[in-house]
Amino acid sequence: MNKLSIEICERIKSVIGDSKFGLHEPFFNSLEKENLSNCIDSSYVSSIGEYVNSFEKMIEEFTKSKKAIAVVNGTSALHLALKVSGIKPDEEIICPSLTFVATANAISYMDALPHFVDVNEKTLGIDPLALENWLDKIIIKKKGKSINKNTGRIVSAIIPMHTFGHPLEINSIVKIAEKYNLIVIEDAAESLGSLYEGKHTGTFGRIGVLSFNGNKIVTTGGGGALITNDLEVASLAKHLSSTAKVEHKWKLIHNQIGFNYRMPNLNASIGCAQMKKLPSFIESKRNLFLKYREVFKSLLGVRIFSEPDNSRSNYWLQTLILDKEHESELENILEVTNKEGLMTRPSWELMHHLQMYKNCPRAPLPNAESLAKRIINIPSSPFLV
Amino acid sequence: MNKLSIEICERIKSVIGDSKFGLHEPFFNSLEKENLSNCIDSSYVSSIGEYVNSFEKMIEEFTKSKKAIAVVNGTSALHLALKVSGIKPDEEIICPSLTFVATANAISYMDALPHFVDVNEKTLGIDPLALENWLDKIIIKKKGKSINKNTGRIVSAIIPMHTFGHPLEINSIVKIAEKYNLIVIEDAAESLGSLYEGKHTGTFGRIGVLSFNGNKIVTTGGGGALITNDLEVASLAKHLSSTAKVEHKWKLIHNQIGFNYRMPNLNASIGCAQMKKLPSFIESKRNLFLKYREVFKSLLGVRIFSEPDNSRSNYWLQTLILDKEHESELENILEVTNKEGLMTRPSWELMHHLQMYKNCPRAPLPNAESLAKRIINIPSSPFLV
Repeated sequence: MNKLSIEICERIKSVIGDSKFGLHEPFFNSLEKENLSNCIDSSYVSSIGEYVNSFEKMIEEFTKSKKAIAVVNGTSALHLALKVSGIKPDEEIICPSLTFVATANAISYMDALPHFVDVNEKTLGIDPLALENWLDKIIIKKKGKSINKNTGRIVSAIIPMHTFGHPLEINSIVKIAEKYNLIVIEDAAESLGSLYEGKHTGTFGRIGVLSFNGNKIVTTGGGGALITNDLEVASLAKHLSSTAKVEHKWKLIHNQIGFNYRMPNLNASIGCAQMKKLPSFIESKRNLFLKYREVFKSLLGVRIFSEPDNSRSNYWLQTLILDKEHESELENILEVTNKEGLMTRPSWELMHHLQMYKNCPRAPLPNAESLAKRIINIPSSPFLV
Repeated sequence: MNKLSIEICERIKSVIGDSKFGLHEPFFNSLEKENLSNCIDSSYVSSIGEYVNSFEKMIEEFTKSKKAIAVVNGTSALHLALKVSGIKPDEEIICPSLTFVATANAISYMDALPHFVDVNEKTLGIDPLALENWLDKIIIKKKGKSINKNTGRIVSAIIPMHTFGHPLEINSIVKIAEKYNLIVIEDAAESLGSLYEGKHTGTFGRIGVLSFNGNKIVTTGGGGALITNDLEVASLAKHLSSTAKVEHKWKLIHNQIGFNYRMPNLNASIGCAQMKKLPSFIESKRNLFLKYREVFKSLLGVRIFSEPDNSRSNYWLQTLILDKEHESELENILEVTNKEGLMTRPSWELMHHLQMYKNCPRAPLPNAESLAKRIINIPSSPFLV
């Protein structure tokens, strides 16, 4: 047990107390129970119901998107976003290597390939400068398409991900995407409530993707959504999410290969309750950050990650970043904190280190490699302050 | 409004009364609300929790399967069943044309092709005799594989579906499947509670698939399950349904392209309440059948479908079958009954009539073609008697 591990434990406890805490636990009260009870009384628990419609409306209003389509989870939202974007098999889709596996998996479901790029320390999201340099180097244009000259494959889209809720430099990414004719699908699974230059994350690209998994800032048990200002995209996404069934008084006709991705009304019912609490969750989490910042500012060897410039973060997960000279202590810190009942987690294993993605195309990834050895997420639930 | 339409309306109303009724509505009471409330109190609403485990245990006990794996819906269960069966792109999978679109869609998700075969009037499921004749005609064996000599593709599996809950002649199908080395995945999405020769449907093949959609005999809002006696298959299905995450104290490693298919605990909580009621639902639905049979026995031109030989059906949907000489009256009957507030539905549009499947390989389908013009499903909820 080294000194830094002990210090980190003590300082976390000085903020949140001595109990056992998960990384991110939901906060419920009677509001969720009431909605569930009403949902049961209505008998509409499945893919049709008033709560699904209301939940979508609440997301639209909160994110200022024209349309939200509620689906079973963030992974299905990513898959559907790629589907309605017309991604073809064997195309390459740019995404960070530092991300949750769903980003890369959704690309695989399309028989396309993730092409991993690097992130930066300021945002933990795709680094615009490194991205542009890399694309300048590998892309040639042919008939309006961007071709990876190393592989001969079309590069058709990019999925920037707002890591742990923190907005990346999305305006710069969108500009680079335009230069290379890439569709932008924003993976905002973790960043509900996070703004970049005053605008909600997920609304800069053609489609944004949200998650309402149990560990997210707002949960529906399992759930996700697409947000978009493109009404045609929205309509197709909704159609495909509901088995591509054609409206008819009684005929049961489907006109495309669709999916069973629609969020059940039961799950949406708690989503409606949670959305009402979202502003207070964000406030709590931002306050939690201030408290953590206070106790960690005097500790050498580690810093607490704070929201990037021009952004207002939901601080979904609170993140400690070890100084490079302390990276060898990561395992010990994880061991000690978890043993003490404080749930902490490292970064995801980088995508290009996973067996199934190790042979995918990629840019040099020095920052992702380094950050993955230095990230420690610490208890972040909204009720901790 | 023809005479048969009026007669059908009146006879349905003589059984279920004069109110408006859906085709199949769920029955809930305080038990579901209690479980939901407990689930909220536990804070475990997502993919981990005691209700998911209990729900799986209840399915195992009820179906007498070694393992049940609860997932987000029947479609994902079918997809996962094909995945763990090792289906390869461009293989052909035998299934009925008279089925819900999910059967064919799940095959498409694997980049495989549905190969449609005919059903019979006795069971509404795949006709064993027609199947064997067809396979004898088109299959040649090469190195232990069955090859469709018309297309050159491998035929690797068969998905018999227990239509509207009624068991098909599954023993005969399994025997034919063995002859042609086909993996049997039973689509028992509609037949929870239905037995063939005293054994639960879905337990004859390598894997059975259940659905708990809002319209099913037992609902979880959205939900499905795989049932199997093969522990290796079960373990792989569970692993793949939970993003293929490798167990570790804190590392976040995934060793395959997995799926976010695990049923949320919130949904499982009402499933546990529903499973307790399943025996009474089956009894009610069987009684409803007896009442419908009584009122329809004297009506010429139509018969009520009764469970096939050697089987005990859950009577998920109650089905009227028009005599062939009355098939031209189908539209009018649907029009009149629905206008009267009695929800009735025809058969699904046959798969080989759908745009995306019309060029798939198929056997002659005379019975499916005929039945699709004569099937009328009528209100079937468990609380109607």
